[in-house]
Amino acid sequence: MCVLGAGVIGLSIAWQLAESGCRVTLFDPNPACGATHAAAGMLAPVSESGYGETEVLGLGLESLRRWPRFAADLEQAAEQPVGLRRHGTILVAHDADDARELSRFAELTARQGLPTELLTGRAARALEPALSPRTVAGLEVPGDHSVDTRALTRALLVTTARAGVVLHRSPAVPVVRDGRAVAVTRAGDGSHHPCDVVVVAAGADSSLLPGLPPGTVPPVRPVKGQILRLRGAAGLVRLTVRARVAGEQVYLVPRAGGELVVGATTEDIGPDTRITVGGVHDLLRAATTVVPEVRELELAEACARLRPSSADNLPLIGATSVSGLLVATGHYRGGILMAPATAAAVADLVHGRACSQAAAACSPARFLPRPVAQEATR
Amino acid sequence: MCVLGAGVIGLSIAWQLAESGCRVTLFDPNPACGATHAAAGMLAPVSESGYGETEVLGLGLESLRRWPRFAADLEQAAEQPVGLRRHGTILVAHDADDARELSRFAELTARQGLPTELLTGRAARALEPALSPRTVAGLEVPGDHSVDTRALTRALLVTTARAGVVLHRSPAVPVVRDGRAVAVTRAGDGSHHPCDVVVVAAGADSSLLPGLPPGTVPPVRPVKGQILRLRGAAGLVRLTVRARVAGEQVYLVPRAGGELVVGATTEDIGPDTRITVGGVHDLLRAATTVVPEVRELELAEACARLRPSSADNLPLIGATSVSGLLVATGHYRGGILMAPATAAAVADLVHGRACSQAAAACSPARFLPRPVAQEATR
Repeated sequence: MCVLGAGVIGLSIAWQLAESGCRVTLFDPNPACGATHAAAGMLAPVSESGYGETEVLGLGLESLRRWPRFAADLEQAAEQPVGLRRHGTILVAHDADDARELSRFAELTARQGLPTELLTGRAARALEPALSPRTVAGLEVPGDHSVDTRALTRALLVTTARAGVVLHRSPAVPVVRDGRAVAVTRAGDGSHHPCDVVVVAAGADSSLLPGLPPGTVPPVRPVKGQILRLRGAAGLVRLTVRARVAGEQVYLVPRAGGELVVGATTEDIGPDTRITVGGVHDLLRAATTVVPEVRELELAEACARLRPSSADNLPLIGATSVSGLLVATGHYRGGILMAPATAAAVADLVHGRACSQAAAACSPARFLPRPVAQEATR
Repeated sequence: MCVLGAGVIGLSIAWQLAESGCRVTLFDPNPACGATHAAAGMLAPVSESGYGETEVLGLGLESLRRWPRFAADLEQAAEQPVGLRRHGTILVAHDADDARELSRFAELTARQGLPTELLTGRAARALEPALSPRTVAGLEVPGDHSVDTRALTRALLVTTARAGVVLHRSPAVPVVRDGRAVAVTRAGDGSHHPCDVVVVAAGADSSLLPGLPPGTVPPVRPVKGQILRLRGAAGLVRLTVRARVAGEQVYLVPRAGGELVVGATTEDIGPDTRITVGGVHDLLRAATTVVPEVRELELAEACARLRPSSADNLPLIGATSVSGLLVATGHYRGGILMAPATAAAVADLVHGRACSQAAAACSPARFLPRPVAQEATR
């Protein structure tokens, strides 16, 4: 089988399929250099959850449960760390409005049975002493963790190769004949790779692939994110720290080795990957507001990439109207978190097993026009 | 003769000496990659002038007068542009305190016979429409210009080569025998280059050169500067724009081609060239405060270098206690501006001519201990 796209989703799928005995060929002109390259690596379904996005939360929670095993297997197979940190997350408030919002959010999570704990400003600072003295309240989300995305993709590249996955560093497009995916054509040499299954995991490019009947992959919108990597933060913060500053969400994700990732803007402006003054300024302002000592850190990198967003923010995982053509994209801000569940779901589908309820909700079929008869009986 | 250091000062000296018939060898491990690489290229002796720094202003004004000829000769010799912009500078004020300061500064410059013109906020915005609506006053300094530093050093590298200057891309140190500079030893191969004059133009490293008797080059202190290059600003601003925002000086220098240089921090923290969150944040905040549309520009580069500062902020240009050993450093924030006057002064000294009064004031002799007899008669 062929997988198009070697971001965290494509790599995880390729690994899982190869482990289950499939012969897998992977195509990507720049493996792990798309949205995955920018990702902060938060495994944070609870702190990222939006009101009403029950299905996104469901898939996130399922995938979070899979993460410890996924990381352990990967580290063993690749013989290198992936930097899973299980210290939890703290959301912080800088004024009374923020604090009320945290309190409402705590109630919401409690009703959903998700563990969170409301803290005074003093208690928040006791837990994370680098927080600004202006912190007036906190909400601890002990189950929301993080992973070092770049360590993760390094490990995935090693382990897929060891599992026999052949990686071609070039783009490729599916070949459809009689409503069935039968091969992949590699750009450049135009070589033909016959296969019985094609998995499209090409992020924001997934719905732009040539050669597919229109509407095969429901629209995936690029949502720009700018993110920063700081250095010299060893010991500065232990938890992932999140806040809203001047109306903008910001998070600070510590890594082993003293890196601190500060992210991310959310810009619905089309396929633009420029690093902008406004984006970087707002992230730096927010980060220094939340943790003032961040001012002293080295600004090592600014990066911008396009997140793949579906029309309803839920990923697109599953079969399409083209037989043998599966899709796994639209993970928006949750690609790293949702990779284990997505890979498991694709493997289930390939091997004819039912996938989990959370993954089943992600079927692209939800965007297919309903048959008229069914429409009439609603 | 040998010149140590191929920043804007060393290159200008080498060019001038070669043009006047000398055989010149130039040594620098990374030509034009020190403080020169970061410089914004302001030719702005008036807007940069500090209260009481009469001699710095004097050398700056002399060098500014030399600039048009220097640029024209260089462009002709190198057959490429150096991006001299003669549109002037505007200082802007965002509150009543700033406005009072501009007004006092206008009076000071008027007493010194320097042309400046005080403007209302409205007039300032008429002159430079991209200025913030919050601009309450302006001061036009029509004589303070700018040059594209990187175009300048590209041209200097071409023209010195054409003039016969031999450039060795390695460090070198002077060899002193019997109180006289007799050669230069090149690092790496240890090769010996006999010469009758050695000019030390090694920026902040100038007083750290091994092999010199202690005190030969008066102390030069590294003063860190962080600076940003933005892209996409074609047509945004025409003049160099300067302001003080939250207590920090900021300037925005437009280049042909749509680049906008935003500088620069002034950090007296020793030889540290990290790009920091605090430095970049403050520059971005200041720049977006002064010209709000800057938010939309691309952040193309952040750069940090060490400016060479003498104990009294006046450059060190001239003979030392070692015969045949000249020095040309300590230009602090004014290296680009002062390069033509410095090169002329060194050429004057080498050829036994009196140099200008402004350049003579820069003699390192001012830091030599006075003879006891003279001391007694003061």
